[in-house]
Amino acid sequence: MDKTFIIDEDRKQRLGFEEVIYGASKSVTLLSELVKDYSEKNKNVLITKLQQDKATVLLNVYKTAFYDEESGIFMLYPINKVEAHETKIGIVSAGSSDIGVANEAYYTLEYLGVNSRVIHDVGVAGLHRLLNKLEDLKTFDILIVVAGFEGALPTVMGGLLPQPIIAVPTSVGYGSAKHGETALHAMLTSCANGITVVNIDNGYGAALGAFRMLKLIEK
Amino acid sequence: MDKTFIIDEDRKQRLGFEEVIYGASKSVTLLSELVKDYSEKNKNVLITKLQQDKATVLLNVYKTAFYDEESGIFMLYPINKVEAHETKIGIVSAGSSDIGVANEAYYTLEYLGVNSRVIHDVGVAGLHRLLNKLEDLKTFDILIVVAGFEGALPTVMGGLLPQPIIAVPTSVGYGSAKHGETALHAMLTSCANGITVVNIDNGYGAALGAFRMLKLIEK
Amino acid sequence: MDKTFIIDEDRKQRLGFEEVIYGASKSVTLLSELVKDYSEKNKNVLITKLQQDKATVLLNVYKTAFYDEESGIFMLYPINKVEAHETKIGIVSAGSSDIGVANEAYYTLEYLGVNSRVIHDVGVAGLHRLLNKLEDLKTFDILIVVAGFEGALPTVMGGLLPQPIIAVPTSVGYGSAKHGETALHAMLTSCANGITVVNIDNGYGAALGAFRMLKLIEK
Amino acid sequence: MDKTFIIDEDRKQRLGFEEVIYGASKSVTLLSELVKDYSEKNKNVLITKLQQDKATVLLNVYKTAFYDEESGIFMLYPINKVEAHETKIGIVSAGSSDIGVANEAYYTLEYLGVNSRVIHDVGVAGLHRLLNKLEDLKTFDILIVVAGFEGALPTVMGGLLPQPIIAVPTSVGYGSAKHGETALHAMLTSCANGITVVNIDNGYGAALGAFRMLKLIEK
Amino acid sequence: MDKTFIIDEDRKQRLGFEEVIYGASKSVTLLSELVKDYSEKNKNVLITKLQQDKATVLLNVYKTAFYDEESGIFMLYPINKVEAHETKIGIVSAGSSDIGVANEAYYTLEYLGVNSRVIHDVGVAGLHRLLNKLEDLKTFDILIVVAGFEGALPTVMGGLLPQPIIAVPTSVGYGSAKHGETALHAMLTSCANGITVVNIDNGYGAALGAFRMLKLIEK
Amino acid sequence: MDKTFIIDEDRKQRLGFEEVIYGASKSVTLLSELVKDYSEKNKNVLITKLQQDKATVLLNVYKTAFYDEESGIFMLYPINKVEAHETKIGIVSAGSSDIGVANEAYYTLEYLGVNSRVIHDVGVAGLHRLLNKLEDLKTFDILIVVAGFEGALPTVMGGLLPQPIIAVPTSVGYGSAKHGETALHAMLTSCANGITVVNIDNGYGAALGAFRMLKLIEK
Amino acid sequence: MDKTFIIDEDRKQRLGFEEVIYGASKSVTLLSELVKDYSEKNKNVLITKLQQDKATVLLNVYKTAFYDEESGIFMLYPINKVEAHETKIGIVSAGSSDIGVANEAYYTLEYLGVNSRVIHDVGVAGLHRLLNKLEDLKTFDILIVVAGFEGALPTVMGGLLPQPIIAVPTSVGYGSAKHGETALHAMLTSCANGITVVNIDNGYGAALGAFRMLKLIEK
Amino acid sequence: MDKTFIIDEDRKQRLGFEEVIYGASKSVTLLSELVKDYSEKNKNVLITKLQQDKATVLLNVYKTAFYDEESGIFMLYPINKVEAHETKIGIVSAGSSDIGVANEAYYTLEYLGVNSRVIHDVGVAGLHRLLNKLEDLKTFDILIVVAGFEGALPTVMGGLLPQPIIAVPTSVGYGSAKHGETALHAMLTSCANGITVVNIDNGYGAALGAFRMLKLIEK
Repeated sequence: MDKTFIIDEDRKQRLGFEEVIYGASKSVTLLSELVKDYSEKNKNVLITKLQQDKATVLLNVYKTAFYDEESGIFMLYPINKVEAHETKIGIVSAGSSDIGVANEAYYTLEYLGVNSRVIHDVGVAGLHRLLNKLEDLKTFDILIVVAGFEGALPTVMGGLLPQPIIAVPTSVGYGSAKHGETALHAMLTSCANGITVVNIDNGYGAALGAFRMLKLIEK
Repeated sequence: MDKTFIIDEDRKQRLGFEEVIYGASKSVTLLSELVKDYSEKNKNVLITKLQQDKATVLLNVYKTAFYDEESGIFMLYPINKVEAHETKIGIVSAGSSDIGVANEAYYTLEYLGVNSRVIHDVGVAGLHRLLNKLEDLKTFDILIVVAGFEGALPTVMGGLLPQPIIAVPTSVGYGSAKHGETALHAMLTSCANGITVVNIDNGYGAALGAFRMLKLIEK
Repeated sequence: MDKTFIIDEDRKQRLGFEEVIYGASKSVTLLSELVKDYSEKNKNVLITKLQQDKATVLLNVYKTAFYDEESGIFMLYPINKVEAHETKIGIVSAGSSDIGVANEAYYTLEYLGVNSRVIHDVGVAGLHRLLNKLEDLKTFDILIVVAGFEGALPTVMGGLLPQPIIAVPTSVGYGSAKHGETALHAMLTSCANGITVVNIDNGYGAALGAFRMLKLIEK
Repeated sequence: MDKTFIIDEDRKQRLGFEEVIYGASKSVTLLSELVKDYSEKNKNVLITKLQQDKATVLLNVYKTAFYDEESGIFMLYPINKVEAHETKIGIVSAGSSDIGVANEAYYTLEYLGVNSRVIHDVGVAGLHRLLNKLEDLKTFDILIVVAGFEGALPTVMGGLLPQPIIAVPTSVGYGSAKHGETALHAMLTSCANGITVVNIDNGYGAALGAFRMLKLIEK
Repeated sequence: MDKTFIIDEDRKQRLGFEEVIYGASKSVTLLSELVKDYSEKNKNVLITKLQQDKATVLLNVYKTAFYDEESGIFMLYPINKVEAHETKIGIVSAGSSDIGVANEAYYTLEYLGVNSRVIHDVGVAGLHRLLNKLEDLKTFDILIVVAGFEGALPTVMGGLLPQPIIAVPTSVGYGSAKHGETALHAMLTSCANGITVVNIDNGYGAALGAFRMLKLIEK
Repeated sequence: MDKTFIIDEDRKQRLGFEEVIYGASKSVTLLSELVKDYSEKNKNVLITKLQQDKATVLLNVYKTAFYDEESGIFMLYPINKVEAHETKIGIVSAGSSDIGVANEAYYTLEYLGVNSRVIHDVGVAGLHRLLNKLEDLKTFDILIVVAGFEGALPTVMGGLLPQPIIAVPTSVGYGSAKHGETALHAMLTSCANGITVVNIDNGYGAALGAFRMLKLIEK
Repeated sequence: MDKTFIIDEDRKQRLGFEEVIYGASKSVTLLSELVKDYSEKNKNVLITKLQQDKATVLLNVYKTAFYDEESGIFMLYPINKVEAHETKIGIVSAGSSDIGVANEAYYTLEYLGVNSRVIHDVGVAGLHRLLNKLEDLKTFDILIVVAGFEGALPTVMGGLLPQPIIAVPTSVGYGSAKHGETALHAMLTSCANGITVVNIDNGYGAALGAFRMLKLIEK
Repeated sequence: MDKTFIIDEDRKQRLGFEEVIYGASKSVTLLSELVKDYSEKNKNVLITKLQQDKATVLLNVYKTAFYDEESGIFMLYPINKVEAHETKIGIVSAGSSDIGVANEAYYTLEYLGVNSRVIHDVGVAGLHRLLNKLEDLKTFDILIVVAGFEGALPTVMGGLLPQPIIAVPTSVGYGSAKHGETALHAMLTSCANGITVVNIDNGYGAALGAFRMLKLIEK
């Protein structure tokens, strides 16, 4: 059986970013083949949602590689420290359980060469924590807002702040949280206007969405 | 076929309130029979979620009856004006589309002889509207909070206010609002603690829940 | 019962746009009161998803008002023709059944003073129709992509075009289309990266999302 | 990456209780950091839904800590025996499988300094067990009622008892029990009036709901 | 196009009852053709869930026919009064809104030549109503139990009574009642043992189920 | 606003059939524009799922047009009687309520110039009806099998017959039939092997699927 | 904390069978306590859905106990061989994957002192297997029919056989089988009349349902 | 208890292919018995969705057996290399995560003695990969198209290619992918015409569907 896999080689030219690898449902054998291909070409590659046990196998082979346990982000080559230029993207999380998804957005942006900053624990159950950060939050061009449970944070922020807001529901919660579906649907039906939404736990997609918007500034 | 219906006659003695009639799925013939029974005994009765066309039939027969179109609440005898004693229950709604459900709670409490006050339009998309009302809201003993769409209002209030909060999701919204299911599940998974919830559009149930709590004050 | 409704009066200052009215679940009595308020202040107002029968009542009173039957958009005062400056936002629809949602986005942007252009019928079942438009589509800064049924159009466009793409699922379809849920979830799980999504049939929200992004260009 | 987590420090002042930690989806590394913070301040903290393996790690460090395996409740410092004053809150469970959720409510109340009593196994399949307890149940001010499977117990109790009833559905059951959804929806649509409901398995939330109501007595 | 419909002519011989017609989704033209066929053969036929407007058309043609508005049951020829022999089947309903489904079971049994008795309004919110009827209920061989909302009645009866119980969920209720799904799933997960269940609103199916069981007695 | 709609003009060349119009969610104004376009070019067009009231408007303008009320199929020009050549496609329906969907398949094939035959009422509740037809059914090359309720017919036929079987679930049924979802999922999980399935009520899609297969015979 | 569990001691007197223990969600500690109680009273007890690892613990203590791995049925004392009197209950399974659920019914009946016989592998994909068994199947008084995937077997049997049929959906299957929900809903909407249904995988409940019916024969 | 399992022995004669064994939910004991039966008759047998641990047990006994880890396909005897005759069936996958399902189709066809070819990685996010393969894809008689996430590939191919297309949704994805349900429903509501669909991850069923169609060519 022919097993040739086709990389979307001109994606960068078309869209400004390379193809990445979704790690969660690939066998470690398949992942090893794919990474080897990149390694031999001295090209960096991003793997998302990579489980710990598969990461361990790859890290044993590729000593320079980077792996973040909370998010499952893997990069073949670590990114050189992004210089301290202005940070245009703020990543805001409702609670400390959302750290994995916030990290996925953060490291994806790092991989794309984009600086961002994560602000934790401004969930609406302690509203003053958010209100205290409001002036800080106004300084970002684009906001990625990560929340699980009832997912109310993007709604409250959308009523207070004029920037583009990308809402990321997380699967944090139990029972009626329905693995993130409730937060997802709450964000989609938000009474705050003009919020856009990505898939549950999709910090990666939020980062790419922000990356597309960033080009508007550079025009 | 025997058609004897049995009224739960000692409910008032057990629970402190009478049986009421759920109007939505009964035929007007059946409703007429039931109301006639109460009328002949000179007893008041509350019908909930009564559609306009059925109400018209009943109002033609019972000239003294009260009907509120927004909520579908029907009472055989209007309640004498409740005197202006202290109002212990506040009914807060997120948007003006939630008026029907807020009214259902309000008139049910009126029927039970309990004073309440409705505060409209403090939805979290314009947070200052809520913050401006905060001192006023602190004066109530019990809060009924009505919201559709993403249903974030009880969560924000639950983080700011210490009273018992009964959250009522409404079916206002479309698409991902899923006829109130999203608001319901968002309220149930609220990151604010100790909020309790009733069925979608169940202003009546929220009023009864508050009524049960009221007795704690009188102890 | 107190019936004072509170308008979010400083929303424009905070967010750059006024509060609008969701028309679908308000009674015509309530809508008349609200519109009268705006009219007396000589302020324009946008009502979304207004049903034909309610619109007829309002149009009889407010002779200058604008109403679009396909989308249910109502404006108290028609917008003066937007001058033919550069069009930054393209609204792309998969099929002619999606016209209502595309119009909702178009007229909302018009109300906000923003020019846009609608491109119909580029659904992926006839892929060449899309490929033929590709150079045209590259000229927009932001793309709103409207599709029902399986909702594949944003995915195909997301793989071909680098701009921010706001995907709008529509409730067009039957059976497994589940009133738009399938298109919604397909857009959220798109294998094309960085697409963001709004609620089913939410042309209004897509327009607001684009409006937030537009400010990035003006920086 | 900045990893400062913000504790909602004035929650006690606003609401009467401290912030707690949701343990289920936090890594043991993150939990250890958070608990250390409390320990260094000599403050007690409650962790809910903590899995056995993570608890073992924490218990090895904090020798005085309390952990209940059935509910996953963890407290940094055990609560001094609550004196035998009058017990105002009764926690009633339908079956012995519901013990974990009943315990979560019990220990949360203990952490808040509130006495309660658990009554097991009064499920409606053996109705006389409930009827035998009726006089005992009338002595409580507030009832927390825990049930899985079809969740009928709060409905039957709601028809017999006048107190505030907080219904807690549990995920006990299989097939059509849908991980607690059926019990949840059954409680929400109960034909008994004025019952309020919390999330599936949310013994913690029920305790907090009861805590808010307790203050009504003290007024 | 050939339009020959095939009647299952030997069903009575195989199963003991004739084929019936499901009326809800057939056009009146098609129903008229089918009924004409039975009429010409002087055979009786049962139509279930027939809407009022279609019934009116048929009743105008077939003057001897019977139609019950609450249940939508139609019979070509009314059944001669069943003699007052012992009634083996009891049909118990939780509330007066369930009358249509109870009637569907009652008239289907009548059509099959089987006597039954309907007992209304023994819902569990007023438990004494059920307990008062217990001795009466013990006299039946088979019980059909009809309930909407949370559907708790068959569970309570199943714990008190030893007979075969066929539970029929109804679509009475709103919000979390989910058009009868909650009652259905509650009955399927009942903690009372050995209850069997039929489809939502399927009084007809419950009658047939009871009919199959009746033959056990006659053995 | 530009309103140019783009017809997929070379679809016939690519796929062997023309674009058709989905009638259910288009306004009559839009449909009139689209049909006029075809009429002026003397081209035939198929509209699916067209409601009666819209059909009436079109039939008044286009006197030669064909409309089938059961299925909602509309054709601008009726197809000349297909000559009595061999019929390769059999359309089998479980019950007479499925006639609309069977007709949709039949008339779509007629529009494509393909002969087919409909066999009604071979539902599995009267299995001998199917077994009696078995030899007849073996003469077809391709079978389209239409069934609602539990959708068991394609499973039984798939175990008895070797041809390609396209299963079409219908929305006939109530309660647990879930508007056709149960039949759909039953067909997809059939223990009979090699059955393929189309959307609920999609007689049109089944016809097109059969049309694609027909070309295999002609090779 | 009080941990007294209450056994429903007079259930046998009321219903003819003892209380049993649902094993799946109880900790081994709790199960050990409960079984010890029965053991000390020299009473037999049935545990359902007991996982292998918990069973091992109990089997080590109670040497005479019986455990069936396929079904998870545990009995404290094995039942003496039921004498070969006439078998009134037939348990029919569609495929060999359904063996666990068929066994649960079989051993529950054994525990109740009732003889039954299991007939495997008569699924409708090989219809002749069922038709060959038809005369044998007619000899039973009551049929329990177990099927997963699309769950068509009870429908086909219901059309061929006049006895009471208790349908048991199983969770066997994947994808659209939805853990047994599709088979469940297919059985509930069966076009065969008078079939009654129990919960997914509930062989125990089917046995109890049959047990209730058996008493009709003995009258 | 009788444990005779019945093999559908004349399936090959009826349908052209043998019965196969669904491996996922059978115990290794049961599987061993079944395979032994085939082995003793020197008959080959196919097991689908066999987990690794069970396969290991069987492979230790049957040294000649074949097992593919990605798909879980097991065959008692490996198939002799199919000669290089014309390949009529193309299996196309959207991404490399879909390899398991593609393999299931490939090896099932091999078991049936049918040649096929797998083409990986032509997902629509890199559309040119598909367009580059178009001429190659036109050479197949039948296409099996495998895709997870949003499942758009069969839609795009259905608009470009005239052959019969069997769409296979996979469970690859997370969040809104809903374990393959979104891809399934997207394929069922495809705006491309005449696509037919099989269950989620059902590569086996797609192979059998193609096998049924292959016979049309041979006529």
